[in-house]
Amino acid sequence: MSGEAVMPVLGSVTIAVDCMGGDHGPAVTLPACQAFLARHPQARLLLVGTAEALQGAAGWERCSVVAATEVVAMDDPVEVALRRKRDSSMRVAISQVKPVGGVAAAQACVSAGNTGALMAVARYVLKTMEGIDRPAIATVMPNQRDGHTTVLDLGANVDCSAENLLQFAVMGSALVSAVEGDASPRVGLLNIGEEAIKGNETIKRAGEMLRRAQAAGLVNFIGNVEGNDIFTGKTDIVVCDGFVGNVALKTAEGLASMLTSFIREEFTRSPLSKLAALLAMPVLKRFKHRVDHRRYNGAALLGLRGLVFKSHGSADAYAFEQALGRAYDAARNRLLDRVHDRILETLQALPTQAPPDDGPVPQAA
Amino acid sequence: MSGEAVMPVLGSVTIAVDCMGGDHGPAVTLPACQAFLARHPQARLLLVGTAEALQGAAGWERCSVVAATEVVAMDDPVEVALRRKRDSSMRVAISQVKPVGGVAAAQACVSAGNTGALMAVARYVLKTMEGIDRPAIATVMPNQRDGHTTVLDLGANVDCSAENLLQFAVMGSALVSAVEGDASPRVGLLNIGEEAIKGNETIKRAGEMLRRAQAAGLVNFIGNVEGNDIFTGKTDIVVCDGFVGNVALKTAEGLASMLTSFIREEFTRSPLSKLAALLAMPVLKRFKHRVDHRRYNGAALLGLRGLVFKSHGSADAYAFEQALGRAYDAARNRLLDRVHDRILETLQALPTQAPPDDGPVPQAA
Repeated sequence: MSGEAVMPVLGSVTIAVDCMGGDHGPAVTLPACQAFLARHPQARLLLVGTAEALQGAAGWERCSVVAATEVVAMDDPVEVALRRKRDSSMRVAISQVKPVGGVAAAQACVSAGNTGALMAVARYVLKTMEGIDRPAIATVMPNQRDGHTTVLDLGANVDCSAENLLQFAVMGSALVSAVEGDASPRVGLLNIGEEAIKGNETIKRAGEMLRRAQAAGLVNFIGNVEGNDIFTGKTDIVVCDGFVGNVALKTAEGLASMLTSFIREEFTRSPLSKLAALLAMPVLKRFKHRVDHRRYNGAALLGLRGLVFKSHGSADAYAFEQALGRAYDAARNRLLDRVHDRILETLQALPTQAPPDDGPVPQAA
Repeated sequence: MSGEAVMPVLGSVTIAVDCMGGDHGPAVTLPACQAFLARHPQARLLLVGTAEALQGAAGWERCSVVAATEVVAMDDPVEVALRRKRDSSMRVAISQVKPVGGVAAAQACVSAGNTGALMAVARYVLKTMEGIDRPAIATVMPNQRDGHTTVLDLGANVDCSAENLLQFAVMGSALVSAVEGDASPRVGLLNIGEEAIKGNETIKRAGEMLRRAQAAGLVNFIGNVEGNDIFTGKTDIVVCDGFVGNVALKTAEGLASMLTSFIREEFTRSPLSKLAALLAMPVLKRFKHRVDHRRYNGAALLGLRGLVFKSHGSADAYAFEQALGRAYDAARNRLLDRVHDRILETLQALPTQAPPDDGPVPQAA
């Protein structure tokens, strides 16, 4: 697998930040940028937003302010972000990643703006990478072995072909090898049973293609996995279509939120419960830290000709800083080259007849 | 909605129990049957299994032993259960529900045997109900409002048409009205966003059909819901295809299992943690009870000409007793008639051109 030969970037890495995105905008993104810079002495940031909102960041070290006059709202339809707000902070931030004369102003971009708009604008500005039919969104979840599981796609593609799923597997492998330093991460195909005969026709065909890719040394495919394996640690990467991935992610969020509120209710039910909570506080805090979803903030948009990371819209400064860190690690470890090389290698080893589809704007959740 | 006019069954209800099914067989099912009988003085049971295994139950009150010579193993392929083991306890138990000369020996059947085999044998023995293209599996999950959410389908159907999803909505409504006594339960369509334009073509078309069914007073459709809404209590019923439903259920199981093991690890990490656990024990126990999946055991196979309930294979006696209770409540409240009436009403109000599909054996997870 070619990804392993890639050397990390020497010297500084620049990240373009859409400071206006998300539920809270600069109130969250600016403190996050400050904290990030303090922890990453080799990083540089391009802070993108309205002049007024970024006044406070004018003199910051290793920072430049890039002006944008518009802001994509969290509920703006994709069309508005794409066609009307051409000078939005989101679009300007993404544009920093696009090479002009072979050089880009930034190596990655981070935005907490709305997912559909971000994917559409990124796809329009940066274009899809050669050999990729559809970009995907990949996120990371904690697992039982105290490791991470990377899941993709998470909502960019509601209907996927077997070819798409193979590409997701290849891109996910590049991501994990770049960010986690794992040369040959395990890939599982999300299905409703472990046997190869399970699932619908697309899934079965994707399984066949992944077995061929495994035989050719392109991915480390371990076979079908089930929903619970997102958390068992049996696999490093879970590949699925965007509909299923989105439902799985939101189901997990919903359950986590219910359990959290049940724990809170039980520990505040009576004076005795409250005393128990007080005594159990250090234990509960460790538990909370272990499953803190903010630590896993920062989903990668993969398959574009530039690195774009999506922060949760409701991220606080701590969570947004994690997304910046994730983008920084990816850029430093040349994720873009790794995806490019692995996809090229796959195309050469397993040529497909499927024509690239760069047509309609993808629908994102 | 016609389901509400149905009167509960007067007098006794008989449940046929596949005593050999599940990971533990009679060691679990027989104690569960005893506990169930003690709590339900009007219930009768038909205990189905090998003569040897059921020796101990020979003299039990309100019980008859029905002999079967074979057992479907948890890993038996569907074909084996269907074609080779014609005298299996699973098949004999299901046959008790089939009317002979207008009268059936039992009003419902419960088995902890493997899902694929159970669905296939039930479908073969009982046949699909008029107006139903494909039977579905429905289960219940706890939600944040201390109520239940019924989710279907859970793996019987990997590819579903919009018509299938409408039928699931109608059958789910009949189930909830029968078991929970809610005349007009809310139905949500599982999607990746709340807006009607979200999702793939099948989902969009299902949304349209559900809106028409809502306008005709057939279901109480509240629109699209997302994965987290399984747990928010926003809807009583979540409708989805079997692939998505299975992934959502298993994702939830995986997360719950991870969180449980994290809590256990943190509370046993040090002597001080163990002391905290001791003091917090009553609180932790209340929490555990609230989310105890055993309380929700017993999935309904809907759309067949007979009531069949599926217990988790790994169920203990407490969990298996819950499944018996669920089947009993469904039979007592004439679930079969309710499904039949509601489907007929739907067919009359919204006739479709789709031919019934009773062809291939369904694939279950």
